[in-house]
Formats: sequence, structure tokens, C-alpha cells
Amino acid sequence: MIDAYRALEAHFARRSALQGALGILNWDSRTMMPPAASPARAEQLAALEGVIHAALLDEKLPDWLAAAENADLDGWQRANLAEMRREVLLARAVPADLVEANARAASHCEMIWRTAKAEKDFSLLLPSLRVVLDRQRELAASYAGVLGCGLYDALHGQYEPGSKVADFGPVFDDYAAFLPGFLARVEERQAAEPAPEPYEGPFPIETQRRLVTELAERLGFTGRIDQSLHAFCGGATGDVRITTRFDEDNFFKALKSSLHEAGHALYEMGRPTAWASQPVGQAGGLGVHESQSLSFDMQVGRHPAFLAWLAPLLARSFGREGEAWSADNLRRRFRRVERSFIRVDADEVTYPAHVILRWRLEQAMIEGGLDLADLPEAWNQRMRDLLGVTPPDDALGCMQDVHWPCGLWGYFPTYTLGAMMAAQLFDAARKALPDLDAQIGRAEFGPLIGWLGENVHRWGRRYSPGELLLNATGKRLDAGIFKAHLEARYL
Amino acid sequence: MIDAYRALEAHFARRSALQGALGILNWDSRTMMPPAASPARAEQLAALEGVIHAALLDEKLPDWLAAAENADLDGWQRANLAEMRREVLLARAVPADLVEANARAASHCEMIWRTAKAEKDFSLLLPSLRVVLDRQRELAASYAGVLGCGLYDALHGQYEPGSKVADFGPVFDDYAAFLPGFLARVEERQAAEPAPEPYEGPFPIETQRRLVTELAERLGFTGRIDQSLHAFCGGATGDVRITTRFDEDNFFKALKSSLHEAGHALYEMGRPTAWASQPVGQAGGLGVHESQSLSFDMQVGRHPAFLAWLAPLLARSFGREGEAWSADNLRRRFRRVERSFIRVDADEVTYPAHVILRWRLEQAMIEGGLDLADLPEAWNQRMRDLLGVTPPDDALGCMQDVHWPCGLWGYFPTYTLGAMMAAQLFDAARKALPDLDAQIGRAEFGPLIGWLGENVHRWGRRYSPGELLLNATGKRLDAGIFKAHLEARYL
Repeated sequence: MIDAYRALEAHFARRSALQGALGILNWDSRTMMPPAASPARAEQLAALEGVIHAALLDEKLPDWLAAAENADLDGWQRANLAEMRREVLLARAVPADLVEANARAASHCEMIWRTAKAEKDFSLLLPSLRVVLDRQRELAASYAGVLGCGLYDALHGQYEPGSKVADFGPVFDDYAAFLPGFLARVEERQAAEPAPEPYEGPFPIETQRRLVTELAERLGFTGRIDQSLHAFCGGATGDVRITTRFDEDNFFKALKSSLHEAGHALYEMGRPTAWASQPVGQAGGLGVHESQSLSFDMQVGRHPAFLAWLAPLLARSFGREGEAWSADNLRRRFRRVERSFIRVDADEVTYPAHVILRWRLEQAMIEGGLDLADLPEAWNQRMRDLLGVTPPDDALGCMQDVHWPCGLWGYFPTYTLGAMMAAQLFDAARKALPDLDAQIGRAEFGPLIGWLGENVHRWGRRYSPGELLLNATGKRLDAGIFKAHLEARYL
Repeated sequence: MIDAYRALEAHFARRSALQGALGILNWDSRTMMPPAASPARAEQLAALEGVIHAALLDEKLPDWLAAAENADLDGWQRANLAEMRREVLLARAVPADLVEANARAASHCEMIWRTAKAEKDFSLLLPSLRVVLDRQRELAASYAGVLGCGLYDALHGQYEPGSKVADFGPVFDDYAAFLPGFLARVEERQAAEPAPEPYEGPFPIETQRRLVTELAERLGFTGRIDQSLHAFCGGATGDVRITTRFDEDNFFKALKSSLHEAGHALYEMGRPTAWASQPVGQAGGLGVHESQSLSFDMQVGRHPAFLAWLAPLLARSFGREGEAWSADNLRRRFRRVERSFIRVDADEVTYPAHVILRWRLEQAMIEGGLDLADLPEAWNQRMRDLLGVTPPDDALGCMQDVHWPCGLWGYFPTYTLGAMMAAQLFDAARKALPDLDAQIGRAEFGPLIGWLGENVHRWGRRYSPGELLLNATGKRLDAGIFKAHLEARYL
């Protein structure tokens, strides 16, 4: 019986190595590959993904899983076995033709979406998006059948295993109720202070590169840092790589994305070494992952003490001086709040509203309470309710994100789960490390990273996101801590 | 029956895509990967190689191959089917435990070799090299059994399918007989001319990079050019990449290796598009491949007209002048001949002697005519016979190359096959393109590359190396053309 468990470990270790190969290939696609190689690369990725998927359908697995159930396993091994079973169960739940039909629908719809968004015409998108939605509902039904959960939870669980609407829904609702009043108070305070001075470029790319490298090194990240169109953290176990993007007129893009991706990278580097090639040793869901990037992007990166340390470094690096380069101006810039249409440009306060709106709409569409044809109107109505603004067209409204066209339904909540967990973890870290704020003011991140390593990174998937948070902070997900954080920072 | 053939094509196309993924991963290992990632990368490569090997052992293949035999196929399809059958036959001929034992023996012996070579002590290497040799003889027996050929041909055929000792042996013997007298005449002429003036560095890396890029572009290579410890051509179908290495004191390393690797790359880029993902569309064996690199490294790269074009470009690029930078000095440098111990440093004239010596020794060891313990003495005796010199120790003698320790037995002849084919192809190209020498003097490579594309590149593996050469040049492999080329250049 222990032999069956060992056979499973060997099988999943080989699969993990192939996933590592896929990670490097994906990194190459976005950093090194000449554009003309795209078609060949698509074949390589599809073939490798096929092999990785097929490894979950191996006919020996059900027998091994059953036999291992009776083996004498320790806690980590048992959690590993449970994670293996979940992956196999989900892979076997979906008919092969649905996997293909879903991929085809998404890839077709994503192309249509580019045109429809450019032409601001939702009616162009509607037919192909309906096909994507139908396939997503079929996927949801397949997963829900074996997991015994609701349709929306089935999809959401792909991105955040163990997370359920019943848990995060009330927390999100709480925030939605809090936001309008809070936003009005923030705007009132904001109106009473001067607008931040602009930072006038150009900012040499080489200087930005040195700055980003120095920050990443201070965070203990020593892997590759390259350039790509969109910043990301990728690579493989033992070879974590981040990218950033440089804009000569705006160094904040490189600054912010480097802190963000370094946060992801620290999590990947901190996964439990002994379990790195096993399912239980993988990083938690995308929400937990986002909590680690936002710990550095938002909690540290906009911390007043950090900005007081950063401002003179920026001035020195770019050889500038004056009011724009003061710590006070940097703080004002970073706590600027605005009711805007676009999620990716949103600030820390309004970002959750963009997510909550999408979550409510996609859940209604998956569960049948909203017809896709009525999406634009429903979107605009909810924008008015949450943020008091109405998008002038659907490109600035329900067509702004690629997620739905490319089949990522149930994904959006992970952004705000991450933001709330980051606040809650930072709050707990501050209690455990009384000197934390002063350390951040000296750009000493070792103690914070140590605490995150001890309480988050080293646990892999041993616990569900909810259990992990409870163990680390003594509480389940709690909007109160996030609200208190925002009140302290923005009022 | 045509369905069986189509199923084979789809199967091999997926395998080809995985080989492309492996090519990119190998490229990354040697150009981008942080050294600390080596152990993880080894797992990735092993897992991916395992999948690629296993694809040849798929149990559906024998039935498909048998059924496709009766399908109505055209010439390319039939050649493709034959190549598929050969690959499957060879893969199935070797027991899985021998594949593993061979890999383990080679990887162990390669490590021992580093120490033994450093300590110049063959007795340290002997025990582990004997294990490698035993495994190679077992492999040879496995292949020979299904191919119905001799042991040495079985191993050599892994690197140059369709090439046999019966064909190249007499040609190599002919050259060995010619060399001593020819070498004496070359040395006599050489003694009568002044030694080449040295090129004094430093040569800025950035200038070398521009030079190499310009040359590669003139050759029509537009893929990535990166840096690695040893130059190579790699990547994948549709994404061919070369590397070079820069030495601030010696720009000839980058110059020579770029021409060499660009020659390999042009062959890879010129493979038949419609068959690129099929076995028949792969490049010919390593000898044919080497003929393409040497077409540019040796035939073009040391062509007096090319050197006359290159010399002023070098002087201009590095901002130098004087006798050392004249075309005449460059020619003298490139036609310098020397009796030396080390193959990789050897000149065009003596290089084949190094190969012929290895071929004769490894064939005797594989077939049982020479005991491994007697290798050092046999090596030194043959060095005296061929080049009239005796290595002072085994590090400069039989331990200089990594090939035998790492299990590449039967590989060496491909170097000289490539050199001879390159001379023979260039001779035929010159007859077809009366203006060829003048074009080379203007660094116009289009007509030559077009001729090689038409006569070599576009045929993939449609023909054996011998047939390819016969079709392209009207002759089988002929030492006479190579000798005539050397006489023209060195006397």
C-alpha cells in the first residue's frame, strides 16, 4: 500500500518536471522568442500541455489512489494524497471533447473580442461569448458533479481550491456596503489636500533597471529579471523568474510591477523544498498567491515608512530634486483615489468594487439568473450602484477584460481575496513583529519575509486558503481588517 | 490504410513538437538558466526525453506501420514511412534497462574523466570507461540485430543514418595514405613564407557582436544570436537560434564559430516546410549537417576572395591598420598548418588525421580487436604514423575528447565526412555557378545558399547521405575532390 503511494509520488514528480519545462517554455514565449516562431511554439505548448493533462488520466492512477488510501501515511503524505485525488478526480470528470471544445471556443472568442472591443460593439462579441459561456457551464456541471458543490464554486475552485462563495460572498457584500460612504469620506479628505506634483520624465531605462534590481535583491530575489510586454512571475521550481516592463516616461510601472512579481516569486521560492515536486508542495490558489504579491505591492509598497525611504532613493537615482521628489508627494501620489471605469488602473480602495461587480454578474450568468444579452445593461447599473459612474461605452464597461472571452470564469474574486488576505496577514505580522513598521522604514524585509515564509510559504497546499489564514492570523477572512487598513491609510 | 498513415503523421507531429520544446529547453540551459537551477533542469530534461522516447514505444505503432505499408503513398510519404519504421525499430530493439544503464554509465564516466584528464592518469579512467564500452557494445548488438549490419555501423548509424564503413572507410584510408607526403610539401612551402603577423587585442565585445550580427545577416540568418560557453546551433523548427562566444583578446573565436553555426542554422531553416514536423523532414545525419557548417566555416570562411573582402571590414570595425590587417596576412593566418596533438585546435589539413585515428581505434574496440587497456599505446603509435608526433601524456592523447566517456562511439567520422562533403558540394556549386568565386569576394552568398537549399536543405531525410551527395554532385564520396581542394588552397 505504501508502494502504491510511492508510485504515485514518482508519477507526480515526473509530471511536475514536465510542468517545469512548460513554465520555462512559457517564459521564453514572452521574453525571448522571435514573434515569427509563434505558430511553432503554439504546437509545442499544446503538445506539452497534452502530455501533462494525460498524466492525470493514466489508467493506473485510480488503483494506486485506492490502495494508497490504506497506507500508513503521515500528515503531509495524507494531504498530498488528497491533493492528488482531487486533481485526478477533476481531470477524469471532464470529457475529452469538452476540454477541446472549451479551448477552441475560448481561443476563437478571444480573437473576436479584440475587434469587438476596438469597435465598442458588444453585439459582435455576443454570439461567440455565448459559446464560451455554454462550455463553461458544462465544465461547471462536470466539476460540480464530482465535487458535490454549486456551479459557480466548481469554476472558482479551479483557481482557488477550497474557496467557496458561502465564505467569501458575505465578506465581499460587507465591503460593497461599506464602500460608498467610505469613498465619500476619502474624497472629502483628498479635496482638502493639494494634488500630487507630477514626475517629469524621461527616466533612463538603465537607471530603472538598476533600481528594480536593487529592490528585488533587498527582497532576497536572486533569479532572472527580464523584460516583457506584461510583467509576470514564471519559470520553474528552483528557477523562478520575474519580468518587468520599462516606460521611459513613467518609472512607476517598473517599480510597482517589480514589487508585485517579487512577492509572487518569494512565495514560489519559499514553497516546502521536500514537497516541491508534489501536488501538496505547490503554491496555494491564485488568491493566496495574490496575497503574497500584494503584501509587497500594496502593504509594503505604499506603506508611508517605505515611501519615506524610497523617495530619496528615487531622487538620487534619477538625479532630481524639488517638491515632486519629496516623501510627502510620493505618499500623496500613492493614496490618490478615483472612481474610474477600468479595473487594471483602479486604486486600492475602488479595486474591490470592480471585482465584486464581476463576481456577482458572472455568478448570475453561470447559474442562469442573468442572460448574456443583458450583460451591458446589468454592468452599467452595478457600476452606478457601486461607484456612481456610468461607462460611456462597453469597451470601457463589460468588454474591458480578456477573462470572460478566454474562458476564465470564476477567476475574478481571487484578486480581492488576495488584497484582503494581504491586509489580514500584514496585521498579524505586525502583532508578531512589533518593530515591523520601523524595519520597513529601513527597507529591511527579512523579518516580514521570515514571518510570511513560516506562516504561508512553507505550507504549500497542506491547508485550504481558509485554514491557512486561520492558522496564520487566528481569524477567518475578515473584511473588518481590510477596512481598518484602508481607513488608516486613506483617512 | 491511408488512415493508419495519417495517424502516424499525427503521432510523429506531436512528438516533433515535444522535440521542439526540448530544443528550447536545452538552449535555455546553455544561455539563460542560472547555474543553481541545474538539478531542477536535469529533471525537466529527463522527463521530457522520457516522453519523447516513449512515443516511439507506443503499442499502436507496429499495427499502424504494418497497415500503412499497403496505403497508396507518394514518394515523400513512403520515405517518411521508412524513416518512421527505422526510428521505431531502433527504439524497440533496446531493452529499457540497457537505455538506463548506458545513460548512467556515461554520466558517471564523464565525471571521472574530468579528474583523470586533469591528473593525466588513464588508469583512473579505465574501469568506468570499460563499463561505457561494454554498454556501447550491447547497444551495438541490439541495433545490429534489427538492422542486419556490423557492430560499428550500428553505432555510427545513430549519428549518420545510412552511412557505412564499407563506403567511407576506403575514402578515409585514401586520405591517410595521402597525408604524410602532402603535409611535407605544405610545410616546405610554409617555411618559405613569413609567419603571419599577430592580431593584438583587446577587441571590444560590442564590436565583435556587431560584426557577427552583420555576417549572420549577410548569410540570411535572422534568428536569435546569444552567448554561451561553447557555440552551438539549437532551438526548434521555426525558431532556429545560434550562439557564439566572445573573447576580448581573440575575435577569431566569435568569427569562426558564427560562420560555423550559421551554416548549421541555414540547413535547419531550409528543411522542407511541408515535412518539417515529420521524420523525413528532419535534417540529414551529423555528417551532412557538418558539411553545411563547414561550407561556411571552411569553404567560404577561408576562401581567399572572402578573406580579401573580410580583411578591410575587420580593420575598419576595430579601427586598426598596418600589415597585420592586410588580406595577405589574414590568408597566411588561415592557411597555417601544424602537426598538433589536439583535434579541436587542428587545421583543415590535419583534422582528418585526428578523426581517422579515432575511427580506427573505436572500431577495433567495439569489434574486439583492441583491448581498452592498450588504448594509450595504440593511440600514440597511430599519432606517430599519421602525424609524426607523440603526445607527452594521455591528456594530450587518448583522453582529450569527451566523446568516449560520455558514450558517443561511432560519432567521430561525421566530422571528416562533413569536411569532405563540403568540399565536394562546393566543387559542384562552382560548376553550377560560374560566378561563385567572384560572388564570395563580394560577400554575396545568395546564389550559393540557393544552390545548397535546392540540392541539400530541401531534401530533409528523403535520401541517404550517399544518395544525396550523388544527386547533388554526380559522384559518391570522393577523397580526390577534397585533396584537390587542399592542394589548391595550401600549395
